[in-house]
Amino acid sequence: MHINSYTHSAEWFERATEVIPGGIYGHLGPAEGCFMPVSAYPLFSERADGAYFWDVDGNRFIDYMCAYGPNILGYNDPDVDAAVAAQMKRANVVVTPSTQLVELAELMVDTIAMADWAFFAKNGGDTTTFAIMVARAATGRDKILLHKGGYHGVAGWTQKDGYPGVTSADVSNNIYVDFGDINAVKAAVAEHRGEIACFMSTPYHHPVFEDNQVPPEGYWQQVREICTQEGIVLAIDDVRAGFRLDVAGSDHYYGFKADLSCYCKALANGWNISALCGTDELKDAAASVMYTGSYWLSAVPMAAAQACITKMREIDSAATCLATGTKLTTGLAERGAAHGFDLVISGEPSMWFMRTASFEGIDDPNYVLHQAWVAECVKRGVFFTNHHNLFINTAMTDDDVQFTLDVADEAFRVVRSNARNLIGK
Amino acid sequence: MHINSYTHSAEWFERATEVIPGGIYGHLGPAEGCFMPVSAYPLFSERADGAYFWDVDGNRFIDYMCAYGPNILGYNDPDVDAAVAAQMKRANVVVTPSTQLVELAELMVDTIAMADWAFFAKNGGDTTTFAIMVARAATGRDKILLHKGGYHGVAGWTQKDGYPGVTSADVSNNIYVDFGDINAVKAAVAEHRGEIACFMSTPYHHPVFEDNQVPPEGYWQQVREICTQEGIVLAIDDVRAGFRLDVAGSDHYYGFKADLSCYCKALANGWNISALCGTDELKDAAASVMYTGSYWLSAVPMAAAQACITKMREIDSAATCLATGTKLTTGLAERGAAHGFDLVISGEPSMWFMRTASFEGIDDPNYVLHQAWVAECVKRGVFFTNHHNLFINTAMTDDDVQFTLDVADEAFRVVRSNARNLIGK
Repeated sequence: MHINSYTHSAEWFERATEVIPGGIYGHLGPAEGCFMPVSAYPLFSERADGAYFWDVDGNRFIDYMCAYGPNILGYNDPDVDAAVAAQMKRANVVVTPSTQLVELAELMVDTIAMADWAFFAKNGGDTTTFAIMVARAATGRDKILLHKGGYHGVAGWTQKDGYPGVTSADVSNNIYVDFGDINAVKAAVAEHRGEIACFMSTPYHHPVFEDNQVPPEGYWQQVREICTQEGIVLAIDDVRAGFRLDVAGSDHYYGFKADLSCYCKALANGWNISALCGTDELKDAAASVMYTGSYWLSAVPMAAAQACITKMREIDSAATCLATGTKLTTGLAERGAAHGFDLVISGEPSMWFMRTASFEGIDDPNYVLHQAWVAECVKRGVFFTNHHNLFINTAMTDDDVQFTLDVADEAFRVVRSNARNLIGK
Repeated sequence: MHINSYTHSAEWFERATEVIPGGIYGHLGPAEGCFMPVSAYPLFSERADGAYFWDVDGNRFIDYMCAYGPNILGYNDPDVDAAVAAQMKRANVVVTPSTQLVELAELMVDTIAMADWAFFAKNGGDTTTFAIMVARAATGRDKILLHKGGYHGVAGWTQKDGYPGVTSADVSNNIYVDFGDINAVKAAVAEHRGEIACFMSTPYHHPVFEDNQVPPEGYWQQVREICTQEGIVLAIDDVRAGFRLDVAGSDHYYGFKADLSCYCKALANGWNISALCGTDELKDAAASVMYTGSYWLSAVPMAAAQACITKMREIDSAATCLATGTKLTTGLAERGAAHGFDLVISGEPSMWFMRTASFEGIDDPNYVLHQAWVAECVKRGVFFTNHHNLFINTAMTDDDVQFTLDVADEAFRVVRSNARNLIGK
């Protein structure tokens, strides 16, 4: 198998560090939490198509991060990009909105089970922040109930006191409970009765560095009941999981109805748009909050979103991704087992989390084996990150899965030869 | 002259109200602070080109809001859109950034006088919030000094306590002074010595509903000196004025050097990108803040921004807009005077504010005359808003200015016949 080298990536990164803080910022950077060693990873891409991208050294990768979510139909999807090309000849951002705004809102309301209305912005975080503002406007309360370790963006209130640039005031209205712990929810609600505006959560728990957790049986139904009784707005952050579990919404997938739902990422196959959907009860509150942005009514991403949603419905993006993910994760775990590794798969298969827990019965709590195996995969053209959930898109074929399993097998074989050294046993 | 009718706009708005809170949200909506009566204004656009857009009723408008800023080179600029078309064939948002990121950061550093580095996001507000977080991370302080009435986005900290969805905690670290009042700045700094992380301001004062104010002679130089002495980060919000006063930055235009500068709007002629630029002293602090978003490394808007900045430098967008604005505003005031109106022009001519202050010596403090005149202009194809600064772009020609002055003249003539009734004298 071909082993990649990254000469040009390293050169571009050197240039980048001159003029950009950290060289590459945020979740895509080598310095961030995903622990992507520069020696194993491509840092700059040249082009992309379908399930694949090519880096600046000409290496090809099948991309199981899907641009961290936006790539749902395959990079450069012809239907979405044709809608973009047609709309950009007419107009993009204009002083008044386009009819694309109305048609897209109608399509969202028709597609998302809980939605009576839609509001469009640019970042996923624009919608999570708007959701808590709408809930506060509707309830006249300040506090927000959250699951520990949940990710809702980068605004101050989503971070932790003591993080660089974050003040105590930013997080002073937050209350945290463990995901899936209904007794903790009850206790928090009892302690802060009449003070909680909003319970915000991802539909299932997909933190970094930890096995992901699907909701315990009946959890969301009980939460829904408590929120209704206590006048708390239930907001689901479907930015990451949206359209990968159920095209009608992840709350619909788990059998409950949110009051507010946040969408981004898969919404327009990478074109720049996010959405907050809500129920009629919260429509006036949403209209009352001053909330806007320079490009929020741009027509091009709205045309892209219409094409993307239409296609996701036609091909059932969620069912397709779940089926491909099941095939892939089952195969990966089998390949691991054949080489003596326990590859633990968690979360939902369209957006799974994995962790190489042990080799021949010896636990590796420090992720050394996992990082070594992932690096061997990446060097052979399968792009995984170490400690973040992965993503499936609908462009991935059985051949792509087979290619991935072959690479995974070879990577397990390589790591196996050094596994005991790596974990120090 | 043709008088517009808005049958289809009204129909689309009716559809919009069914599925969107408020029908059209934010600053573009008829319900917001700009007081755009549905009877006079188009609400939905069909296409745009150069200085003009066409609404869903087929009416043509010269757009003096320039999409509230983004339209700097004319709608659908061929050079910018060619860069977009070429880049979208390669890739947009990918799991790794493109080389466009590095080239754009290098171009920003080469273009913006104060910039040693650049960081890209999506909303103007992403960059103002990042600026205060970087300042807090750098100084270990919490408080922010602001000019009363300055606009820095929609995040909680930029709003006011008591606004819908805003908590006291959101604004608890804000301190306000009047624009241009150096003694107030000195007093605030003395009162909060060692507590202020950042002084954030637009380069000149362009609030809504008020005559805009350019900085008093020596104001920024004194502020700069105080900030340096007191270890306060001086951040300029150039989201609105950027590239319309000076392509090297509005701080450069006014003869001082900011520590951080926020860009958006004109940066890519409407393609979706914003930027924070900073000095080397703040580079590590910027790298330390957790700050990222789903589309922040998308290559298409970065290719657009490169093409836009290159063209803005070539044609000197700022000088061009200032010259056109001077010609236009001088002419508008003359037309007003000829009909007995005192049209007060304030701010900078590329981004002027105007107010019909009086008719034949009778003051109109309630803007009734101004709203009537603007409505008559809009109905004849000149798109102004009532109480927000206007914008010039480089696609506007002498013929466009002449057309505008002809419409303005006719509109003054129409309002004149009823002026005394309107102001109740």
